[in-house]
Amino acid sequence: MIDLSCDYNCGCAPEILAALTLANDGQHATYGFDRFSLSAKEKIRAAVGNPEADVYLLVGGTQTNATVLAALLAPWEGVIGAASGHIAVHESGAVEATGHKVLTLEADRFGRLAPETLEAYLTAFYADETCPHMVQPGAVYLSQPTEYGGLYTAAQLRAIRALCDRYGLRLYVDGARLAYALAAPGTDVTLPLLGACCDAFYIGGTKCGALCGEAVVFREKQPHFFPAHKQRGALLAKGYLLGLQFDTLFTDGLYLRLGKQAVDCAAALREGLEALGVAFSPESGTNQQFPILSAAQLAKLDGKIGYEVWQRLPDGGAVVRLCTSWRTTLADIGAALAALQ
Amino acid sequence: MIDLSCDYNCGCAPEILAALTLANDGQHATYGFDRFSLSAKEKIRAAVGNPEADVYLLVGGTQTNATVLAALLAPWEGVIGAASGHIAVHESGAVEATGHKVLTLEADRFGRLAPETLEAYLTAFYADETCPHMVQPGAVYLSQPTEYGGLYTAAQLRAIRALCDRYGLRLYVDGARLAYALAAPGTDVTLPLLGACCDAFYIGGTKCGALCGEAVVFREKQPHFFPAHKQRGALLAKGYLLGLQFDTLFTDGLYLRLGKQAVDCAAALREGLEALGVAFSPESGTNQQFPILSAAQLAKLDGKIGYEVWQRLPDGGAVVRLCTSWRTTLADIGAALAALQ
Amino acid sequence: MIDLSCDYNCGCAPEILAALTLANDGQHATYGFDRFSLSAKEKIRAAVGNPEADVYLLVGGTQTNATVLAALLAPWEGVIGAASGHIAVHESGAVEATGHKVLTLEADRFGRLAPETLEAYLTAFYADETCPHMVQPGAVYLSQPTEYGGLYTAAQLRAIRALCDRYGLRLYVDGARLAYALAAPGTDVTLPLLGACCDAFYIGGTKCGALCGEAVVFREKQPHFFPAHKQRGALLAKGYLLGLQFDTLFTDGLYLRLGKQAVDCAAALREGLEALGVAFSPESGTNQQFPILSAAQLAKLDGKIGYEVWQRLPDGGAVVRLCTSWRTTLADIGAALAALQ
Amino acid sequence: MIDLSCDYNCGCAPEILAALTLANDGQHATYGFDRFSLSAKEKIRAAVGNPEADVYLLVGGTQTNATVLAALLAPWEGVIGAASGHIAVHESGAVEATGHKVLTLEADRFGRLAPETLEAYLTAFYADETCPHMVQPGAVYLSQPTEYGGLYTAAQLRAIRALCDRYGLRLYVDGARLAYALAAPGTDVTLPLLGACCDAFYIGGTKCGALCGEAVVFREKQPHFFPAHKQRGALLAKGYLLGLQFDTLFTDGLYLRLGKQAVDCAAALREGLEALGVAFSPESGTNQQFPILSAAQLAKLDGKIGYEVWQRLPDGGAVVRLCTSWRTTLADIGAALAALQ
Repeated sequence: MIDLSCDYNCGCAPEILAALTLANDGQHATYGFDRFSLSAKEKIRAAVGNPEADVYLLVGGTQTNATVLAALLAPWEGVIGAASGHIAVHESGAVEATGHKVLTLEADRFGRLAPETLEAYLTAFYADETCPHMVQPGAVYLSQPTEYGGLYTAAQLRAIRALCDRYGLRLYVDGARLAYALAAPGTDVTLPLLGACCDAFYIGGTKCGALCGEAVVFREKQPHFFPAHKQRGALLAKGYLLGLQFDTLFTDGLYLRLGKQAVDCAAALREGLEALGVAFSPESGTNQQFPILSAAQLAKLDGKIGYEVWQRLPDGGAVVRLCTSWRTTLADIGAALAALQ
Repeated sequence: MIDLSCDYNCGCAPEILAALTLANDGQHATYGFDRFSLSAKEKIRAAVGNPEADVYLLVGGTQTNATVLAALLAPWEGVIGAASGHIAVHESGAVEATGHKVLTLEADRFGRLAPETLEAYLTAFYADETCPHMVQPGAVYLSQPTEYGGLYTAAQLRAIRALCDRYGLRLYVDGARLAYALAAPGTDVTLPLLGACCDAFYIGGTKCGALCGEAVVFREKQPHFFPAHKQRGALLAKGYLLGLQFDTLFTDGLYLRLGKQAVDCAAALREGLEALGVAFSPESGTNQQFPILSAAQLAKLDGKIGYEVWQRLPDGGAVVRLCTSWRTTLADIGAALAALQ
Repeated sequence: MIDLSCDYNCGCAPEILAALTLANDGQHATYGFDRFSLSAKEKIRAAVGNPEADVYLLVGGTQTNATVLAALLAPWEGVIGAASGHIAVHESGAVEATGHKVLTLEADRFGRLAPETLEAYLTAFYADETCPHMVQPGAVYLSQPTEYGGLYTAAQLRAIRALCDRYGLRLYVDGARLAYALAAPGTDVTLPLLGACCDAFYIGGTKCGALCGEAVVFREKQPHFFPAHKQRGALLAKGYLLGLQFDTLFTDGLYLRLGKQAVDCAAALREGLEALGVAFSPESGTNQQFPILSAAQLAKLDGKIGYEVWQRLPDGGAVVRLCTSWRTTLADIGAALAALQ
Repeated sequence: MIDLSCDYNCGCAPEILAALTLANDGQHATYGFDRFSLSAKEKIRAAVGNPEADVYLLVGGTQTNATVLAALLAPWEGVIGAASGHIAVHESGAVEATGHKVLTLEADRFGRLAPETLEAYLTAFYADETCPHMVQPGAVYLSQPTEYGGLYTAAQLRAIRALCDRYGLRLYVDGARLAYALAAPGTDVTLPLLGACCDAFYIGGTKCGALCGEAVVFREKQPHFFPAHKQRGALLAKGYLLGLQFDTLFTDGLYLRLGKQAVDCAAALREGLEALGVAFSPESGTNQQFPILSAAQLAKLDGKIGYEVWQRLPDGGAVVRLCTSWRTTLADIGAALAALQ
């Protein structure tokens, strides 16, 4: 069976496995001071175009979101995010466990928090004279791409940054699947733009070719993030495990290549499905595709192609999620489309 | 240079690397439901001799300590530990960040919390009529081996368990270096004994042959530890990475073999140092050795053998830590001893 | 000016002031062990009809909500409440600051969480296979009366209790204005019913005749709530200040009398406004009235009658809140109505 | 029986009761915006000699300590205090419940944290290369007077301030019994000095003549302390209750007068006891006296004079605490001394 149900059910890019094998016999400085981590951080700073960026390598996405937000927020502040966002729904209250409320706003159909929605909320918040009794907005959380494969445009990102500047908010972007956003056709959101707009964002490794690992990029030096991430259990003793993976991902453009492989496959899948008359909810230019399949189509997939039911429909059909990844091939896509014939 | 400064500056056991390589092309169920994790848990239950044990695979030691203790404690409870214990000193306040005080008691010279010390504290606590205004003791934290390479005896462990039963406390053992404790000559503390005495303990992977990973063993089913560890960022999406490592470590006695290799090397090192007239502070039967070296001896090591200064002495000498690990060889020990001639 | 903008802008019932004066020269046991507190707790247990009830006297509403919920919830649990509920909106994230998410559901137009809404949420939650990745529901938070003056019926309360039993949830009722709920005509929710249905609820003092103070009633003994409320800063050193107030409130039916005074005045106000053709949004049988006033009517009130704007309307009018309290008189109501002529 | 066991077992100063009575019929702005609170804050700013000081009125001591420290500290920071300090021992872990470790240092015999002790700790901390793995020191907590009636000198306070400046720490002083410190003969620590040295300190009301209430004085404006103290349940709805008390305490020097009454009585008690050959452990110039009494002396007190056993001695005697307060009279002292004849 070809499993397209998610993008984190496989191993790592062969280049990473090779590097791991090569490094296994050596001795490496601990807690992120090994040569791989130092090199990875340097390469990420270069890719972001900000020599002042402060880069930390953490293990997983929920951990990263909670750890970074807890470091960016004052105790009385909450983080604004789309109601469908990962921190609001699928992290078992990791942000709240650090003492902060997730302030949810309605997303657009692509899972994005529209600048207009954010502005309306902020205007109303500060116009409400009871606002000192409420959780103070302290940061904005976005995902690029969103849970629904949606992509912010550069204009949207800049508009949100401008609102953050006006209202004293920090901007944080969850890039669990960032490789697939960066590779999406037509996107104008680049690593340098993220680096310029965000107080912090992370470059996802786990879902983009690594075994584990997420690289957090702060726009400015963080004198205290070392104890801050140690305190949240996010500092790996054998830091070279993360350093080596990101050093490899940021060598010879591997990270972008892995992203492109997935996005190209997703495009082929989308086109093939469209040719079969399938509609999408929503449409996505990244590695996650959300076709609306009939009960008959679902039956054809069962046992052949792994998928995730996103939303069951009254007629027995469903919106499903089909995920490509850096290791999906056009042959996999062909098989998936063939199953639906 | 042979670096004996710590036991987590290297890669993983070759058996693990081989297994990782073999599994890299497959697709694996996520979040710990992969076949490796299921198999690892089964093998650990067998090794502990408790088919009811509930096993979870987490990533690192600080994360594990904070996550498990936060799950075991009520909000008004603290955890009792040796003042020199890892959670009290070197985890950046990870336990306090979950809202719980670490109640510190004096350790013996081996870093152990003596049952008598614990009993005296508990007796005095409940005899103090202001105790409802204090943090209530909720759990006891031990390390096997301790930060100083010390080992609890089975009698001590049973005595502490009896105190826990009498006072309604949970018992938790940090086994970051458990392989080296289990392999120590003359120890009578086994996995089944830990499993029987502890509400929870963890079998350390990171320092005992794995790239990362710690296996938490609960004596009883934990219906809610899944969201509990997700909430603390301790649930790995690609759980097979941890499952595969522990499955390998618990196949054909690898975990114990790795421990024995380190302990045998440490014994050779200790004997060689004793032959040179070196004393220890304290003596240790596990992989960490704490020789008291003169300034001249330190100078001989510099540049040849990596060590960690544990305590500087007024005469220019120092207590140093020399750590063997599963990958140390008798040749390494020979080189270290030769350097001191 | 007669200020009907809220019900906590005045002193205390004369009976309480008299008792305070009388007790001022005495010496009183501390931390709630004084004779007033003991007597108050006994009287409250009698009023609730549960000799096993465990009663604690805290200072204010937000403090009480956060302290009790933090004691009732496990770390991985959140509390379900109406999206318009006080803990969700107007407590500056006090519940989240203790590490717990407030899980919000849509309220009905009276601010109530309908049993059907709760059941639909719980059914959907446990049907969602990703639910172990979400915040686990641990408790239900209701207010009697609600922020909108709404009242649960006994049938609703029992239905919610049944859902709590079925799903292992605790039930907690915020009674900041409970005196006004108990006195509302036609209500079938009594103190004994609350005591029987709720794991915990509180009898509001601050808004119901006291200077400060809220009496929490637990259905069962709480062996650890003493340190739990000390830890949250909710234990008053001079506990007699709270004990004396609740002892007075529960002597000779004072609490209910104070509630009735407010509710009778509110009824007179409502009838007077209806006679003027005013509509309400929503209608309320308790001390808070929410008339929809035109711009002209608002102008007539300005400077004469204090009110709180609840919602501005496009036509220049507004839904306003007019609050009666235990100290409002029919003369005050007459003046308010006269102003609107 | 004359109860000298503590200083918070009585009512309030008659002036406060009179003011409460007078204000009881009025209507008062809520949440600290009433005229009493505004006036109290103005008077406190004047007494502290800092027109920029930001003053908040909270309810109790544990609440105040936890709320202010949580606002002053970053998540990765702890607060340094004497091991015998109130936050370290008798607040049920209130500070830890906000996520911060209390870093304890040995106090001198008066319960004071000596500047030399603090400096030695800070020097050693930053000299330890593992310090990024530890809780970062963020603030210093002192009590004036200490739990043992000890008083910092102006020189000590300035020395600690200088250390705070050098190491980037905030300085916070717990003034639960500040009236008794300010009135102590020979003290050179004044309100203006505290205001100049401390980032924040509080002027205790509960133990110094009020029914409840503590006035926090920040050296600089705190734009976010309103939601910060609301979030911790420390904002009183009927804020006038606190405002009125502090307005009264800071009118016509009442606060200092109340302090002097207690200190004068304590001096008479001390002299009387000395005349009986009694020694003290430690000696104290404030309202708390710690005489070392024999078993025979204790027997003479029993049933006549309330005291608190501080430390039982092997010979059947004890160090006891005798507390005077603003309402103690010289007649009370005479009775206490007579009992011991």
